[in-house]
Amino acid sequence: MEGHQVRALYDFAGESGTAELSITAGELLTVIRDNVGDGWCEGFNQSGQSGLFPAAYVQVVEQAAISSNTVALSQQSSGDYWDDDWDDDSEVGQTQAYVPPTQQQQSQIILPQQNSASEYGDQVSMHTIHSVIPDRPIPNVPKKNNKFSTLIKSGEDSFLMGTRIVTVPESEKIFIEEDEVGRCKWMPTGESYSCVVTSPKKESKLKGLKSFIVYQLTPTFNNIQVSRRYKHFDWLHERLEEKYCFIPIPPLPDKQISGRYENAFIEHRRTQLQEFVDYVCRHPVLSRSRVWEHFITCTDEKRWKAGKRQAEKDELLGVNYFNAIQCPDTSLDIIKMEIQTDAFGKFISGLDPIVKNFMAVAVDQARKHQVLYKREFQKIGQSFTSLGHALEADDNGRGKLTRALKATGDAYNDIGKLYEDQPKFDWEPLADKFHIYRGIISNFPDVISIHKSAVQKRKDCDRLVSEHKMEPQQLRELSHRTDVIARALIAEETHFQTEREVHINKAVKTHLREQITFYQKIVDKLQEALNAFDE
Amino acid sequence: MEGHQVRALYDFAGESGTAELSITAGELLTVIRDNVGDGWCEGFNQSGQSGLFPAAYVQVVEQAAISSNTVALSQQSSGDYWDDDWDDDSEVGQTQAYVPPTQQQQSQIILPQQNSASEYGDQVSMHTIHSVIPDRPIPNVPKKNNKFSTLIKSGEDSFLMGTRIVTVPESEKIFIEEDEVGRCKWMPTGESYSCVVTSPKKESKLKGLKSFIVYQLTPTFNNIQVSRRYKHFDWLHERLEEKYCFIPIPPLPDKQISGRYENAFIEHRRTQLQEFVDYVCRHPVLSRSRVWEHFITCTDEKRWKAGKRQAEKDELLGVNYFNAIQCPDTSLDIIKMEIQTDAFGKFISGLDPIVKNFMAVAVDQARKHQVLYKREFQKIGQSFTSLGHALEADDNGRGKLTRALKATGDAYNDIGKLYEDQPKFDWEPLADKFHIYRGIISNFPDVISIHKSAVQKRKDCDRLVSEHKMEPQQLRELSHRTDVIARALIAEETHFQTEREVHINKAVKTHLREQITFYQKIVDKLQEALNAFDE
Repeated sequence: MEGHQVRALYDFAGESGTAELSITAGELLTVIRDNVGDGWCEGFNQSGQSGLFPAAYVQVVEQAAISSNTVALSQQSSGDYWDDDWDDDSEVGQTQAYVPPTQQQQSQIILPQQNSASEYGDQVSMHTIHSVIPDRPIPNVPKKNNKFSTLIKSGEDSFLMGTRIVTVPESEKIFIEEDEVGRCKWMPTGESYSCVVTSPKKESKLKGLKSFIVYQLTPTFNNIQVSRRYKHFDWLHERLEEKYCFIPIPPLPDKQISGRYENAFIEHRRTQLQEFVDYVCRHPVLSRSRVWEHFITCTDEKRWKAGKRQAEKDELLGVNYFNAIQCPDTSLDIIKMEIQTDAFGKFISGLDPIVKNFMAVAVDQARKHQVLYKREFQKIGQSFTSLGHALEADDNGRGKLTRALKATGDAYNDIGKLYEDQPKFDWEPLADKFHIYRGIISNFPDVISIHKSAVQKRKDCDRLVSEHKMEPQQLRELSHRTDVIARALIAEETHFQTEREVHINKAVKTHLREQITFYQKIVDKLQEALNAFDE
Repeated sequence: MEGHQVRALYDFAGESGTAELSITAGELLTVIRDNVGDGWCEGFNQSGQSGLFPAAYVQVVEQAAISSNTVALSQQSSGDYWDDDWDDDSEVGQTQAYVPPTQQQQSQIILPQQNSASEYGDQVSMHTIHSVIPDRPIPNVPKKNNKFSTLIKSGEDSFLMGTRIVTVPESEKIFIEEDEVGRCKWMPTGESYSCVVTSPKKESKLKGLKSFIVYQLTPTFNNIQVSRRYKHFDWLHERLEEKYCFIPIPPLPDKQISGRYENAFIEHRRTQLQEFVDYVCRHPVLSRSRVWEHFITCTDEKRWKAGKRQAEKDELLGVNYFNAIQCPDTSLDIIKMEIQTDAFGKFISGLDPIVKNFMAVAVDQARKHQVLYKREFQKIGQSFTSLGHALEADDNGRGKLTRALKATGDAYNDIGKLYEDQPKFDWEPLADKFHIYRGIISNFPDVISIHKSAVQKRKDCDRLVSEHKMEPQQLRELSHRTDVIARALIAEETHFQTEREVHINKAVKTHLREQITFYQKIVDKLQEALNAFDE
């Protein structure tokens, strides 16, 4: 493929001081090397400037003869750290390696999405393009949820009408119980546990050409460590989204092209992944999911691959999975349920901008502490230090004031450093927590809409029955299935409420405690400076 | 004078939303009323726009017949709060009432500067113009010291050569002693005392047309309150600058045209005047000055006027006043003295930008606390409060988290208010203290230059003696007088050093204590919020 001409699909601003080449949408480029790793191409533009640009940002313009380079590359790297058939470490869509469109259909590279269900083909491919669109300039937009297409809607019809027979193995069954006040909740089906994410390590392969970060996950129930890369998380996330259309899946940390190997970034991503893992572990359904258990327990390469393929072939997903829900048989009050769902929908849509704003404030505060406030305190520190120095020249040998002023300067400088370090204890964890909630909240409307269309379907069928176009028995069965969807929604609402009561509560408390410690440290620093005046 | 044409000397930007008229240097204007008070004229420009502008910013263009309006105005207002012959409350030059130049010479208005010594006439008038030049756009520039003209230099010659016989009454004598290490210092000539500035009150006259602020001064030695206006301080300041060419006079708070009647401004100006008063009271020479004692003790209108005229007629000022200095008779080491003065000069010129910067940082911090930081904390507060409100809709009747989040929002809002209020306890007083030092430091070079030119004169005379053009006895006398100037300089250096050791020290300590209290209050507020989570 090398030597081929490509056209830039999107603008890409290369980072200065790196080998990156800025490209402009529509521009023609010539590829020199397409396998430099991490989803990057090397090439030159029409002015002759050469450099690296993301393969995903360009498209081949020539109907080139099909070469087998890509396949060869893929096979060549097989056997490395559990890459099997999907090796690209780029975070902008995980299968976006430079593959001319004509080739994509015939390629031996097995796209994981394409495996899951052939009818999703088009849609997945659409999503693929979507996730490629410059994530980088606005990295905080949660990934668009793609499971609520018309395909899902028609799947819902087949569930509601009972036209598709699905067998559910015992291990896949999900139970909903009603508490003392008749409120539905997910029934826990095992001991609760947690899983700690530790020691991100940079590893490389292909003689250093490719680098990636490996995180260690240790569940409390077996205390056995497994190693996972961000792309494994990403794969898992796709599986969970496909399987659970009635549960808003917590988002992963945002994808990022550059700066991924900086220590601060790696450590921050670890805490973000920990938030994701925590949310899943706390969820009564997700924490028992087979693919999740495979993800946090599998240490063997062969078993990993087998489990992975099995998960990708799983057909008990999306609306089909409603068949797995075991819940009370009693009918729900239709009107009460409609009012309740409407209220919840409004609550969620009201919460959405608030949480987004909260998250933005937290991120903004973190940044301001690290840059603006730090600089202000250093400016203050510098002005005291300078005054001390200037007075030194005429301090008549005593120098007491000079020393005290310098101590004051040092104190303010130290406070500047405290401001720089502080966000990782308060504003960043709060932002990470709210990143999860922001994702949950933005996914909830889709979950609610499944129930809404079921309610609409029931109304339609009501009419059909009154017009004698449908058997009452059929309506009763459909009504029962609508109640299953309703109960799943209420159970998830209940879970979300508990989450808030417990975990937002905890997050804000932790934040306040850290803030108290922080301002107390400032008090201590200033006290030190004050003491210098009395020495 | 009404109806006359005037030409704008300087640009003046009228404040929008007021009756002020913007004028441009060179523009022709027609005066409608010239006695609207506070040094303002009413008039219209060539486009027909009318409004108020400072009388001092314009000059009459016609050689008009001399009217007696101005005199009448002056007489009319006489008898008001101790205005006697100088009534303008404008802070931009106190005698700038609209007086056409042709009239100025003949006017019965007695300009205080013109009274002091006829030979200063030109110079004072030059200063008058200077102080009129838009102070307003850059109000923080200390007033230009005008006492070191060539006139003063020639006065210095007459002192050094002993050509002018000056009799010094006992009460005017100033004593310099040498301490145990032979260092010169001003000898205190009485009990030390202080004087408190309190209760600024707005008063008005001319049926409310003129308003002014009156401050109460109470010296500790008699506990009798006197009332003074800013213009009285300004008059006093001029007297002190004229009289003490060997002492850098602390600056007054900056002049200000608008906003003078706002409570925050008045209270702040009170603390600034207190700083000025404190500095004078602490100074062994200034605190014993007759004009100063008159200023802080006179409660009777007649005695005030008499004392005021006497001070204005005082001829024992400037270089003449060196005759009043009583100090040891021994000769100073010429070379040692030159090195010492050079070092001090460098020290002062090094300190100048540092103190200016320090002052700027303090003023900047005060502003940032009141505006930027306050807003940031209110933004944080708002985001917690909004989150609390949004969750309230679905809090399932428990509302515990909602209440705690609102309490957190309140705490951050309160912290925002703390930030707004705080500067008056820490950064503002520090800025006020450094405003005084900035003024002292910027006046010191002039004080040093008097000594420098005396040293130069001695060198010149040295040469004259070696060329037998001067009597050795004359050189000895000149040398002795140079030593008087040198000792006065050292005494002032010593005073300045003590000031720093004691009062900058105290100021920074007070600042740090207030900062500690402030951050402790933040800790307390956050602790309150945290407690709300455990209730």
